[in-house]
Amino acid sequence: MTVSYDGTRYCGWQVQPDQLTVQAVMEKAFARLTQHDTVKIHGSGRTDSGVHALGQVAHFDLLREKDSGQLLKACNSYLPRDIRVLDVQRTRLEFHARKSAVGKEYRYFITNASTQSPFDRLYKLHVPKPLNIEAMQESANQLIGEHDFASFCANPKREVEGTVRTIYRFDLERAGEHVIIKVCGSGFLYKMVRSLTGHLLRVGLGYEAPSATREILDSKFRTARVESARAEGLFLWKVYYGDEDVMEK
Amino acid sequence: MTVSYDGTRYCGWQVQPDQLTVQAVMEKAFARLTQHDTVKIHGSGRTDSGVHALGQVAHFDLLREKDSGQLLKACNSYLPRDIRVLDVQRTRLEFHARKSAVGKEYRYFITNASTQSPFDRLYKLHVPKPLNIEAMQESANQLIGEHDFASFCANPKREVEGTVRTIYRFDLERAGEHVIIKVCGSGFLYKMVRSLTGHLLRVGLGYEAPSATREILDSKFRTARVESARAEGLFLWKVYYGDEDVMEK
Repeated sequence: MTVSYDGTRYCGWQVQPDQLTVQAVMEKAFARLTQHDTVKIHGSGRTDSGVHALGQVAHFDLLREKDSGQLLKACNSYLPRDIRVLDVQRTRLEFHARKSAVGKEYRYFITNASTQSPFDRLYKLHVPKPLNIEAMQESANQLIGEHDFASFCANPKREVEGTVRTIYRFDLERAGEHVIIKVCGSGFLYKMVRSLTGHLLRVGLGYEAPSATREILDSKFRTARVESARAEGLFLWKVYYGDEDVMEK
Repeated sequence: MTVSYDGTRYCGWQVQPDQLTVQAVMEKAFARLTQHDTVKIHGSGRTDSGVHALGQVAHFDLLREKDSGQLLKACNSYLPRDIRVLDVQRTRLEFHARKSAVGKEYRYFITNASTQSPFDRLYKLHVPKPLNIEAMQESANQLIGEHDFASFCANPKREVEGTVRTIYRFDLERAGEHVIIKVCGSGFLYKMVRSLTGHLLRVGLGYEAPSATREILDSKFRTARVESARAEGLFLWKVYYGDEDVMEK
């Protein structure tokens, strides 16, 4: 299924003791819906506290076949309005939302103007000072490809699969007073997208030169020089499973 | 000044005892900003609980002249992020945000699809069943002009200036799964926009024929036949002061 959620009031996707998480709310709703004691929902990966999703993908097993259309309606009737199942599909038995994923796209939305509309405050980062998009793109270009992203990871020890990842594309766009950062990669380390964005923002504001990017990347060590951008404005946009080209925007 | 606010957590614009209202929050912020004991802010009119504003207009008096740009920044630094002053201008002494207004435009945003995005839930009304926009426009056309709108008012006794108002334009637009209702009039009675929209929705869903509109209007009496649409999705869009044509969209 494809799931969209407003991450504002959640401590991220993954179940955690005594915390309100999207996965926990969904598992509880699906247990009620299927009248099972517990239902395990497998997401494509965790999202951080406050991060939104437009196209999170998750799978679950049903003992009996159900009509997809009816299941979609039933799911949403048991879920709060800030979590919506957008699509449900029957899939092959070997499909796994996390293990079968070949890429992920995140998008960061930024209001780059002195005043931010109240309707954007939860969904766009507010950067009042002008951003130099060209400098930011120059930095982003250096991050494309396979690299050890340890410098842009909040906790390298936590990464059981190491800190090497591939970024397929990394594009910045300005539309009036809004800036969109689109990054698509094989996978992302803990707080990697927020750390990359935090660095690009420092470049865009002129606190770092674009040449600093290579230097930070090569150091393979996280320092205070790399800040994590705030969670609001960040969306897990799309998860790729090989049926679509990760290079297609 | 032009003010935009997310009405979700407010009991409307106007100060009310023991209630969180936009006007009360602004008056408190401005008192701190100007270091006066009290500051009175005059809005173009009240908005209901939960209703949003993109272009509310309000005025206030300052004892000393201040630079508009600095004042704008200062205002916003004292206000919560769900209320933003978008523009501040020095005006003529006889200007009054309510009394000088010659027209107002409200817009209702509707998601007309079985599933609503979580990011629209606070800012668009959700109508899952298909709406017949042509029938709704036929009804809306009958409401254009000067009429006694008592049938579409929540409490006619409360209206000190009577229940006759003029609707200048009333347009419905569909854009994919979204429907926008734009209504511009000389002024609106208590819950009038929500009542008109509630009626149009019943026409759009086929519960009433477009011919019912004239009948309800002519009865000049509110009955259970007219329901108020929910507040989310409704925006005070623009206030007119004669410097722009109310017929211009």
